Amino acid sequence: MKAINNVVYQDYMIKSIRFLLLGLFLWENVSAQKLPTDYVNPFIGTSNYGTTNPGAQVPNGLMNVSPFNVMGSSLNAFDKDARWWSTPYEHSNSYFTGFSHVNLSGVGCPDMGSLLLMPTSGKLEVDYHQYGSTYTQEVAHPGYYSNVLKKYGIKTEVSATTRVGVSKFTFPKGQANILLNLGEGLTNETGATVRYVSDTEIEGSKLLGSFCYTNNQAVYPIFFVMRVNKKPSKRGYWKFQRAGEKWENDWNKDAGKYKIFTDYTDQLSGDDLGAYFSFDVKENESLEVQLAVSFVSVENARKNLDAEQADFSFEKTQKNAASLWNNALSKIQVEGGTEDQKTVFYTALYHAMIHPNILQDVNGEYPAMESRKTLVADHNRYTVFSLWDTYRNVQPLMSLVYPDKQVGMIRSMIDIYKESGWMPKWELYSRESYTMDGDPAVPVIVDAWMKGIRDFDVNTVYEAFLKSATITDSTNKIRPDNADYVKYGYVSLRDSFDNSVSHAIEYYVADWNLAQLAGSLGKTKDAQLFAKRAQGYKHYYSSEYGTFRPILPNGEFLSPFSPLMGANFEPNHGFHEGNAWNYSFAIPFDIPGLVKLMGGKQKFVDRLQATFDKGYFDVTNEPDMLYPHVFSEIKGEEWRTQKLVKEILEKHFTNSPGGIPGNDDTGTMSTWALMNMIGIYPFCPGRPDYTVVTPVFDKVTIQLDKKYYPNGDKVTIRRQKAGAGDYIKKIVIDGKPFDGFKINHQTLVNSKDILIVTGNR
Amino acid sequence: MKAINNVVYQDYMIKSIRFLLLGLFLWENVSAQKLPTDYVNPFIGTSNYGTTNPGAQVPNGLMNVSPFNVMGSSLNAFDKDARWWSTPYEHSNSYFTGFSHVNLSGVGCPDMGSLLLMPTSGKLEVDYHQYGSTYTQEVAHPGYYSNVLKKYGIKTEVSATTRVGVSKFTFPKGQANILLNLGEGLTNETGATVRYVSDTEIEGSKLLGSFCYTNNQAVYPIFFVMRVNKKPSKRGYWKFQRAGEKWENDWNKDAGKYKIFTDYTDQLSGDDLGAYFSFDVKENESLEVQLAVSFVSVENARKNLDAEQADFSFEKTQKNAASLWNNALSKIQVEGGTEDQKTVFYTALYHAMIHPNILQDVNGEYPAMESRKTLVADHNRYTVFSLWDTYRNVQPLMSLVYPDKQVGMIRSMIDIYKESGWMPKWELYSRESYTMDGDPAVPVIVDAWMKGIRDFDVNTVYEAFLKSATITDSTNKIRPDNADYVKYGYVSLRDSFDNSVSHAIEYYVADWNLAQLAGSLGKTKDAQLFAKRAQGYKHYYSSEYGTFRPILPNGEFLSPFSPLMGANFEPNHGFHEGNAWNYSFAIPFDIPGLVKLMGGKQKFVDRLQATFDKGYFDVTNEPDMLYPHVFSEIKGEEWRTQKLVKEILEKHFTNSPGGIPGNDDTGTMSTWALMNMIGIYPFCPGRPDYTVVTPVFDKVTIQLDKKYYPNGDKVTIRRQKAGAGDYIKKIVIDGKPFDGFKINHQTLVNSKDILIVTGNR
Repeated sequence: MKAINNVVYQDYMIKSIRFLLLGLFLWENVSAQKLPTDYVNPFIGTSNYGTTNPGAQVPNGLMNVSPFNVMGSSLNAFDKDARWWSTPYEHSNSYFTGFSHVNLSGVGCPDMGSLLLMPTSGKLEVDYHQYGSTYTQEVAHPGYYSNVLKKYGIKTEVSATTRVGVSKFTFPKGQANILLNLGEGLTNETGATVRYVSDTEIEGSKLLGSFCYTNNQAVYPIFFVMRVNKKPSKRGYWKFQRAGEKWENDWNKDAGKYKIFTDYTDQLSGDDLGAYFSFDVKENESLEVQLAVSFVSVENARKNLDAEQADFSFEKTQKNAASLWNNALSKIQVEGGTEDQKTVFYTALYHAMIHPNILQDVNGEYPAMESRKTLVADHNRYTVFSLWDTYRNVQPLMSLVYPDKQVGMIRSMIDIYKESGWMPKWELYSRESYTMDGDPAVPVIVDAWMKGIRDFDVNTVYEAFLKSATITDSTNKIRPDNADYVKYGYVSLRDSFDNSVSHAIEYYVADWNLAQLAGSLGKTKDAQLFAKRAQGYKHYYSSEYGTFRPILPNGEFLSPFSPLMGANFEPNHGFHEGNAWNYSFAIPFDIPGLVKLMGGKQKFVDRLQATFDKGYFDVTNEPDMLYPHVFSEIKGEEWRTQKLVKEILEKHFTNSPGGIPGNDDTGTMSTWALMNMIGIYPFCPGRPDYTVVTPVFDKVTIQLDKKYYPNGDKVTIRRQKAGAGDYIKKIVIDGKPFDGFKINHQTLVNSKDILIVTGNR
Repeated sequence: MKAINNVVYQDYMIKSIRFLLLGLFLWENVSAQKLPTDYVNPFIGTSNYGTTNPGAQVPNGLMNVSPFNVMGSSLNAFDKDARWWSTPYEHSNSYFTGFSHVNLSGVGCPDMGSLLLMPTSGKLEVDYHQYGSTYTQEVAHPGYYSNVLKKYGIKTEVSATTRVGVSKFTFPKGQANILLNLGEGLTNETGATVRYVSDTEIEGSKLLGSFCYTNNQAVYPIFFVMRVNKKPSKRGYWKFQRAGEKWENDWNKDAGKYKIFTDYTDQLSGDDLGAYFSFDVKENESLEVQLAVSFVSVENARKNLDAEQADFSFEKTQKNAASLWNNALSKIQVEGGTEDQKTVFYTALYHAMIHPNILQDVNGEYPAMESRKTLVADHNRYTVFSLWDTYRNVQPLMSLVYPDKQVGMIRSMIDIYKESGWMPKWELYSRESYTMDGDPAVPVIVDAWMKGIRDFDVNTVYEAFLKSATITDSTNKIRPDNADYVKYGYVSLRDSFDNSVSHAIEYYVADWNLAQLAGSLGKTKDAQLFAKRAQGYKHYYSSEYGTFRPILPNGEFLSPFSPLMGANFEPNHGFHEGNAWNYSFAIPFDIPGLVKLMGGKQKFVDRLQATFDKGYFDVTNEPDMLYPHVFSEIKGEEWRTQKLVKEILEKHFTNSPGGIPGNDDTGTMSTWALMNMIGIYPFCPGRPDYTVVTPVFDKVTIQLDKKYYPNGDKVTIRRQKAGAGDYIKKIVIDGKPFDGFKINHQTLVNSKDILIVTGNR
């Protein structure tokens, strides 16, 4: 809790100075004066496997500068070298070994988390087991992080522009050292090269990739340029030298150790190496370091640096980052609710804009998908598409509140198809990792299309979707088991621990979406075909167990079968990261069909309720994150959604490092929370409506983008309590009573005010 | 002996075709028709620690392409990873793992021997422990090497231009692979980077250096461009992946193994990596590979490639290399003697032109000494100056036969001084390794000056020499113990195993030379000063032992003292690579003074003779290589020189892999042999004369460079036998009887004919 307390402490300190003249008794009103960024606690999700980081970043910026505390000491309970670990920062750890540049947030596999920048003082030490430090006085705000290194008494501060990180280190008197470690990082790949351009500038590259190990060929170099703002008294490299035989080591005093290169400043390459700068500094002297990246070239990294941070000005960069965040977060204004609820909300909204990231350099250049080509973007080229996660709510959020971002992302997806022949699935830095399942680009784009976001080349989209939906041989990179699927209507279990059912469920979702698009484009036959395919889910239903159940190649169900197998990420037959219960209600587009399949409304409701009552519901993962809202598809059962959502929000989404239940999944868990908190949740991607749930705030104001929603300027969602309970009694839109609990997207964006009256059930 | 037999076999085959029409009975006359290159056996010195290699190179070329057979298998008795090993090739080994590009020849420390190019066939295998092969049918000529890999049935052939190697591999039908291993090599440094430029071209760099570990900061990158002459069916990289913990390795199937990168073709860096090209080939299909280097940049490596080998034409390159060698070797023509003697002779002359090497690229650019600057040469810029070795005879040989090269080397040394502030000592690729002792640039340049080779900036030379001779603090990089030396006239033993006496002896040699130069320049006072200093050797003489003996800082001799300590490279007090006996007569400039010091002529002669009789003389190292000739400084004892030289030549210099006694020392051992074989040996560098010894040939014709020796066109040294013995009875120059056994340089180069009449003693 120290970090949180520090954040709150600093908040109060800043505010108390700002408002001192207004009088101390105005405290109650202070919150009204707060900016959205004041309600972001970047430490939320940094423990409890949330895997977010408190690093500095601008909205959807390529650069993220995060404290790195997951290696080098047994002081860290969660060590990247001692266990599977996928985040640069864990709140309960305490041994800091630098700032990593460019990081993934909320993911479940290690990658990135490299270019580790560390300040030290005193004698040069290049072994991170030695040079790391515990820390105190952590402070984090959007675009800013700071701590004090106990071992050295160094205050660190970091901030960022879109492609460039900046660090400010304030040293005690004596020798100050700045280290860039290129040998370590979260990434599974090693290998870097570095070169002094001048005494104050280095450039180089490092290999990254093999995310989740699913595609070990999906690797990419990150190029960097780093500058310090003072000429060092000494500078050089270090590199670990392999140990040879004893006779050899007798001669080679560097064998099996880090060799320090004091004179050599030309290109140095290797697996475990770094560059250092040493300075003689006065007491409290500050040094600034800029680190720019590019996925195209060193030259572009330098252009990014010169364009974004021509001068060293930490303060200016920090202010700019805060301003960008306030601007982005202000698109949704909330009133009422507790300070903690506001903090949970704005932090979630902040997490929704960490990924995807702007990939192109300041000159527009970016690496083409699956290619060595460099292309020039005519719109923002986004990267880091964790689409199996984000199609569920992050992309719908973008369509509603940030349609311009959404269009940029969709156009980027289309370009990815044009460049590589395939839509993205889990893309990083123009390489496809093939992590997770299905054909998730389809629901992302169809959902936007159905909501009227159509400023993209739909013909190419349709061509791409048809391709992955219809190719049945091994050249189909998106649907590897499409032959089975097209032939039988399901994917059969061909390897003991394959994800056949999970794959098929995603194909049904994709095909149902594709049917919507085909219908919208007047392609009636296609629409019928894909709608029919989407009904294939019924094959999997086992009346014996009341759940979905894997089907063997001979057409029979897998036996023996345990619907509870697969909990806690245990390997399972046919289901990916979950058990049969976690998937069996995951057919958002046809709950009526599912109800019928499962024996009618009462049986269905009872069984769904039982998943919650018996603890079969897993709040930490995507497949069943829609379960609470399934009740709202059944007339008269909506109260269950409202009850469950409230319970889940209160129990699992809190203003604390553990305040996200499991991986944030590039903002997907956060977005689940934030949309439920404002009272509307996108239950079924591709169906342009929202399930109305009880807002936690008295008033929510969503700023609408006039370019996409010309009839709307902003829409408010107000909650009016007509009793003690949190159940929805009545919905009134622009003064007119509204029937049901599903509000259409067009209705929403064309309304001014949605009033939700709550009370007892 | 297989290799030798093969060489001879191929020689005969070529000749037999050439002369078939002349009739088979002309065999006896065949030798008269042979070219000098036909008498070069590049396998001489490739065993018995000679450390030469049979690789392809042009005279003083930067590129040397050598078979590499010193790693990867216990089949190799001499393995770089099992013992100190300093050559890419050892004749008695048998496991070949490729061709190394850019190699040192005849040195005692490992470096270079990298960029390992290997052809294989069948399934791709990237571990050199597996992909290596035994071989047969070795053939080597100047500029050409070939073998047949038994494991694969691949015929390999290599040749070179100045900066570019070319390889031709003839494969069996099936999959052919070409591997460039960047992880291994003789060098002590690791770290490389490589990048596909196109499917048929890669570029990159590798770190080299820390030669002898004496200066671990003396490292340098070599840049390369490699091309293949056919588009591969597959291409990629491999890289050794570090092994993590078990949990990590369960996920990462590449952990602890070589990962194959099949798709990625952008920059790859690391410690242990390589690039591969695979092809589908027909039976006996040949592929050619060009590998160009530069010590400046990848761009320059490409320029070198395009300028020297624009087209793939192995045959043309090979012919060109042979022609360059014939041209260079033809400067000395020998007649008479046995075929083996001619082979020993021409191979020695060949070895004398392996180093130093041309450093500048085709555009004239080269890396400035001890700097990141790139400069442009206006003459050949040479590198690899092992001056402690070569000042003794290689550089004097250059002055006599290749004065243009000598001037280029001296100018390079002057430039090195201008660039770095110091003359070279043991320089490699513009970095000073500080290996071995003394101030050897002085005798190199003074010897040339005294012989009338003066086409260089003597004022700068003098400035440089005064600097290293007079600075007495720690900034003196050439004479680290100059304070002692200047103050006391000797260097005292300050560390138990320092090389104080060896240092001082070299300083005496340098100072005596400097006195000659000062005198020649009219700097009388300097001449007196340095001549006096040179007499300081007398301090070391211990009449008790009759040898030099280390002196302690208190002025007393080291006690106890063993003059035999230090044999076989055993560490010794005060003496470097030798014992007191190996150094005590090494004062070539003042044998009369030494005679007097040691108690007169008879005592001196007896003691010197005893070094031979008792086996104290070490033929394998430089300090005492002049000992046989010391007798010729004493009137009436010259016969001993003639006898000893003959014995040493016959015993130690033979037409066999073991035919050089110990490290060739960048041609120094070879030059000892070759000059003695033609009858003149440069006994005392700085003294422009030669000791006349018995030639092994009937007639030697030395072509003189008219630019430097306008009065001479060529000079012949003829031997006329006037009896059975090999003692010199009479010397006749241009028909006039010549008195004594020392022939002045000017006399030599202004003569037409020197007749040496030999007989019994």
